[in-house]
Amino acid sequence: MATREHTLDDLFVETLKDMYSAEKIILRALPKMAKSAHSEELRQAFEHHRDETETQVERLEQVFGMLQKSPRAKVCEAIQGMVEEAKDVMDEFKGSDALDPGLVAAAQAVEHYEISRYGTLKSWAGLLGLHEAVKLLDTTLQEEKKTDQLLTKIAESAVNRQAAQ
Amino acid sequence: MATREHTLDDLFVETLKDMYSAEKIILRALPKMAKSAHSEELRQAFEHHRDETETQVERLEQVFGMLQKSPRAKVCEAIQGMVEEAKDVMDEFKGSDALDPGLVAAAQAVEHYEISRYGTLKSWAGLLGLHEAVKLLDTTLQEEKKTDQLLTKIAESAVNRQAAQ
Repeated sequence: MATREHTLDDLFVETLKDMYSAEKIILRALPKMAKSAHSEELRQAFEHHRDETETQVERLEQVFGMLQKSPRAKVCEAIQGMVEEAKDVMDEFKGSDALDPGLVAAAQAVEHYEISRYGTLKSWAGLLGLHEAVKLLDTTLQEEKKTDQLLTKIAESAVNRQAAQ
Repeated sequence: MATREHTLDDLFVETLKDMYSAEKIILRALPKMAKSAHSEELRQAFEHHRDETETQVERLEQVFGMLQKSPRAKVCEAIQGMVEEAKDVMDEFKGSDALDPGLVAAAQAVEHYEISRYGTLKSWAGLLGLHEAVKLLDTTLQEEKKTDQLLTKIAESAVNRQAAQ
């Protein structure tokens, strides 16, 4: 028989902590990725998303506040792994035409992870009756989806074609 | 000026190695997740996807073969991190109604990462003129998307509602 020792509320808070860590790791990684990118369009996309990420961190802090909890991070090993992979690409493909496609791919992996996490958090917030949290999480979710679409557009339009020439 | 020391071919092979490692990690994790799941539907979904994953590993081996390369794995730290997070959920929410929603969320994070990676690999295979590889990678991509949709259905239909009761 399942017990109720740990509930969906706890799981929601644990996953909030995971994303709070994830966003802070991303916040530190994006300036390096922007500096490294060859394409001006890609550099701008990373810089714009860095600014968005700052607001996303604040939204998570607001959700913690709604639960009367102090914002706390629990190291997100998945995002840490993705950022390590991005660093490998920056080292191995420095000066190569394949650098930008590699950076786009790394960033899209991050975006997909976040889309999954925010989709889950939004769904759980709804089940827990946290309607204001649903709105905040959905705003971030839509931003992540837009970033992913923009990265696909950049990859398809210039970056990939150049590398395959 | 960008040099051509490392090309898109190299990046494609590096990302293949990443996914070869990812699929093997997933192959080991899924039986534990199946055994842990409370819902019969979720258990079956994990077992079915374990079988699919075996074929996905073989498809990656076929793509390596097309490039006249032996299949090699390069530890995928991102998936390793996600599997660690799934283990944390299995430990912390053992016996709780929130266990299944936590397992679904962990599996969906994995699926989203894979959807991103296979989308990238398929796109690069196309640019590199590897048409047979495009077909194989797309078959796997569609399987990952279907798995993600099935997990959403399971989460929406039973698992989440039960945990919020």
